[in-house]
Amino acid sequence: MIHPLRQHIEEIISLTDEEFDFVLSHFEQIKKRKYQYIVQEGEFVNKEYWIIKGCLKSYFIDDSGKEHILQFGMENWWITDYEAFVKQVKSKTSIDCIEDSELLYITFENREKLTAQMHKMERFWAKKSKIGRIALQNRVLSLLKNSAREQYNLLLEQYPQLLQRVPKKMIAAYLGVSRETLSRLNS
Amino acid sequence: MIHPLRQHIEEIISLTDEEFDFVLSHFEQIKKRKYQYIVQEGEFVNKEYWIIKGCLKSYFIDDSGKEHILQFGMENWWITDYEAFVKQVKSKTSIDCIEDSELLYITFENREKLTAQMHKMERFWAKKSKIGRIALQNRVLSLLKNSAREQYNLLLEQYPQLLQRVPKKMIAAYLGVSRETLSRLNS
Repeated sequence: MIHPLRQHIEEIISLTDEEFDFVLSHFEQIKKRKYQYIVQEGEFVNKEYWIIKGCLKSYFIDDSGKEHILQFGMENWWITDYEAFVKQVKSKTSIDCIEDSELLYITFENREKLTAQMHKMERFWAKKSKIGRIALQNRVLSLLKNSAREQYNLLLEQYPQLLQRVPKKMIAAYLGVSRETLSRLNS
Repeated sequence: MIHPLRQHIEEIISLTDEEFDFVLSHFEQIKKRKYQYIVQEGEFVNKEYWIIKGCLKSYFIDDSGKEHILQFGMENWWITDYEAFVKQVKSKTSIDCIEDSELLYITFENREKLTAQMHKMERFWAKKSKIGRIALQNRVLSLLKNSAREQYNLLLEQYPQLLQRVPKKMIAAYLGVSRETLSRLNS
């Protein structure tokens, strides 16, 4: 059976068996239970995670105590606080597991080593980073338009199974709307 | 005198004279006058621009006719509609010159060729893409918090000379606030 990470990487670049083994040797695998966190606001972040199985949310709590969800993560998604990870500064967001999750992670140092040695992996992550940037650009556009409907559609496009997997109140926290507004969007 | 693009690239990676000449041979230079556009909503986008001199805005007009500014661009910034450029789809945004501008551009095909041949340039753009993603993540966070003050500070951090160079009404269109609110932030 092909390793799911290999399958995922080979959507963008192709790897020999040796190359994939080399890539994989830079990762560690961990399990987290529902409610456990992988990133905490105010801490340094040295790992980028790839989700084998499970569901996570990246969020922050505003001064009034309200939760805002920046993004969800499910199978085959990469997740971390990118500002903290890339610039080696403290995280502005937290990331928690919404379900029991199995993750692979790569440390900052290993990612630097791997991309410096393997142009292909630099290319792979460059592509992933562009895709992440585009997703955020679309999020900004829909936030500026202030259209909950558009954000809702964007969300379901990105994560089709999401409604089956996460509580309605989290969808509302992502959209920045009340549960009542969400029910209208949902109908 | 060192070419400004070389200076810019060498903030991240170092290049020999031959390498820089090779990189530069993939670019073309153009001049645009104030009010001219480089990207129009609804069109395909085949170029990424680097700003030698001048000031531009990336924006869209919502259904009610209101302008929302996604980002500004000034000297040493890269600008295009990244979704349209990377996915080769039609642009959701327009990009106009706010001042007479001198630009370098690289086509999609030349960028693909250059990054495939030169790991260093792949690395350079990967880093730039990460930085762009982080800027957008911070924009999303401040939009979610709905704090005009925070967005205003973020804007001045990104573009310190901006207030001297662009009309107040554009700053307001970036922040999504009225000119009256802007005056309060400004004081």
